[in-house]
Amino acid sequence: MAQNETGIRLAPEPRLAQFCIDVLLATGTDMATAEAASGAMMHGSVHGVDSHGVRLLDHYVGAFRGGRLNKSPDLKLERTRGGTAMLDADHGHGARATYAAIDHACQMAGECGIAAVGIRNSSHFGPAGAYTMAAANRGMLALTVCNSDSFVRLHDGASRFHGTNPISVALPSGEENPWLLDMATSAVPYNRVLLYRSLDQELPEGIASDHEGVDTTDPHAVEMLAPVGGAFGFKGAGLGGFAEILSAVMTGMRLSPDILPMGGPDMSSPREMGAFVMVLDPDAFAGAELVRAGMQRYLGLLRGSPAREGARVMAPGDREWDVARQRRAEGIPIDPDTVQAMRALADEYGLSVPF
Amino acid sequence: MAQNETGIRLAPEPRLAQFCIDVLLATGTDMATAEAASGAMMHGSVHGVDSHGVRLLDHYVGAFRGGRLNKSPDLKLERTRGGTAMLDADHGHGARATYAAIDHACQMAGECGIAAVGIRNSSHFGPAGAYTMAAANRGMLALTVCNSDSFVRLHDGASRFHGTNPISVALPSGEENPWLLDMATSAVPYNRVLLYRSLDQELPEGIASDHEGVDTTDPHAVEMLAPVGGAFGFKGAGLGGFAEILSAVMTGMRLSPDILPMGGPDMSSPREMGAFVMVLDPDAFAGAELVRAGMQRYLGLLRGSPAREGARVMAPGDREWDVARQRRAEGIPIDPDTVQAMRALADEYGLSVPF
Repeated sequence: MAQNETGIRLAPEPRLAQFCIDVLLATGTDMATAEAASGAMMHGSVHGVDSHGVRLLDHYVGAFRGGRLNKSPDLKLERTRGGTAMLDADHGHGARATYAAIDHACQMAGECGIAAVGIRNSSHFGPAGAYTMAAANRGMLALTVCNSDSFVRLHDGASRFHGTNPISVALPSGEENPWLLDMATSAVPYNRVLLYRSLDQELPEGIASDHEGVDTTDPHAVEMLAPVGGAFGFKGAGLGGFAEILSAVMTGMRLSPDILPMGGPDMSSPREMGAFVMVLDPDAFAGAELVRAGMQRYLGLLRGSPAREGARVMAPGDREWDVARQRRAEGIPIDPDTVQAMRALADEYGLSVPF
Repeated sequence: MAQNETGIRLAPEPRLAQFCIDVLLATGTDMATAEAASGAMMHGSVHGVDSHGVRLLDHYVGAFRGGRLNKSPDLKLERTRGGTAMLDADHGHGARATYAAIDHACQMAGECGIAAVGIRNSSHFGPAGAYTMAAANRGMLALTVCNSDSFVRLHDGASRFHGTNPISVALPSGEENPWLLDMATSAVPYNRVLLYRSLDQELPEGIASDHEGVDTTDPHAVEMLAPVGGAFGFKGAGLGGFAEILSAVMTGMRLSPDILPMGGPDMSSPREMGAFVMVLDPDAFAGAELVRAGMQRYLGLLRGSPAREGARVMAPGDREWDVARQRRAEGIPIDPDTVQAMRALADEYGLSVPF
């Protein structure tokens, strides 16, 4: 049982992925759901996006058991035009629906040059970058957004409004890994606040607010996050709105203030969430070769650009590839709560823990 | 000759628009160019985006005279697939090219549900919101980006890299005006810095840097802007990259560090800039009616959401509609430098000034 110098359990990637699949199948999901949900969680865990990694396994098991998530959804694609479709996810797992939407969008973009799929009746889809990366690995430029339950105040707002509404964009870079942007439209992830809380440290200014919407640096007082942008938070709030509009308004699904909280207590009602994917084929623009060459030149200039003292200029994704290299070599760290949850799941289903 | 209480000249909208057209025609441009360039400048001036308003008229005249801009461009559209096209702008004015790209994209999106046009051999296009608003007024959701000469440092970077690379998104809101986001991916517009400089006031922290890339609050020392996001500026830099990739990499045009400076001294070489427009037809998703109803509910919730003390929660565009109402009623303020430039142009071409 591997562990690192701080005593954190380390799980090899393939065993961890298989464990997630085995647990989900034991819960009663179909194989497509188990593979998609495991794939999305592993994207998070491999790349260091631990908030959207395998710590979600236990949560998802609860959502399948409670009936919030459909274990064997019957996904229905309605192609509305040459480049567009609506996908009804039948209240299945968000990863199952979003990988399927990316597949359809890639196929349609291969024909029309560009395509979009609006997803209906879906659920939490985890790390947005998992889906844009899947498209980039097929030579496409992709943009994926979703909304989520209210947790971010508006600019000049004093209550929770948008979710952390992520935006991810990826495209092939001509390198092993794509160019990959995956950002919440909040100033910080809530996990960052929880980290400061556990360390009892003051937060940076202007990133979170108390229950009255007043900025606070006390991590224990945080009741909502600020939109990204600080004094210019109307930009972050506008970007959160962009994700909200594509995900919820263009699909007719729930707005963030209307979405049931992820953590329950109701784990039986479907959350009726939307999401949205868009795919562009570089071959329908300057051409795949020229776009790859352009990305190479862009990334070369960017990484060679002068850095601040003691810092390094990185392209979106560069930090993630570094983490992935290390974790694939040394194993994926599993936090103590997740170790405990996985042990309970392994005991219940007669499986071996992956660490 | 109207002026407001501070002695600033005020121009009625129709007269100002006609003056811009007359000057451009007198410079020798074709009518399509004069109308497009005037339309984009008026979008800026009417909505309070004065950096991209009629103060640019004199600059554009110089670019037409110097040969940087083609007065009668022969725009060539190559439709690459059902939903995609490349538009060669023949080194014409960016507004001429981008309005044309929006027209084509709206038409293709009417067929395919979604469409994109990559623009080649274009130039400064002014306010990105002018074009998304033109699409929204035709019932479409649009996204427009462009890149520009380097002026924004990277996150942890110490030199100018991206331009202020704007992103605009608009869609019909079911109200008189669309939902309209139009944001630079820099922390602030450079004009804000110039304002602080003229007032000799300290800048807010973390929005601009000196010639070594070190943060400064001294407006006189500013040599580059920070990306939006403050301590999380990798988000702003990533969004700047998104605009850069669509505008320059997907079109095979110049990266920001390779673009000639807007202000010269070379006013004869074409700038070979790219830009990118994307249009989605709400009818190909949840349907125009449902999307309008969703926007109404979203905007109602947003504007009714609790505000911070003394503040008002606004949707993207709300500030602009307020300014437009006022300026349409009272006239558009023309700054003293622009008054002087317009007088010189009026004298030269035998026209009456519009204020």
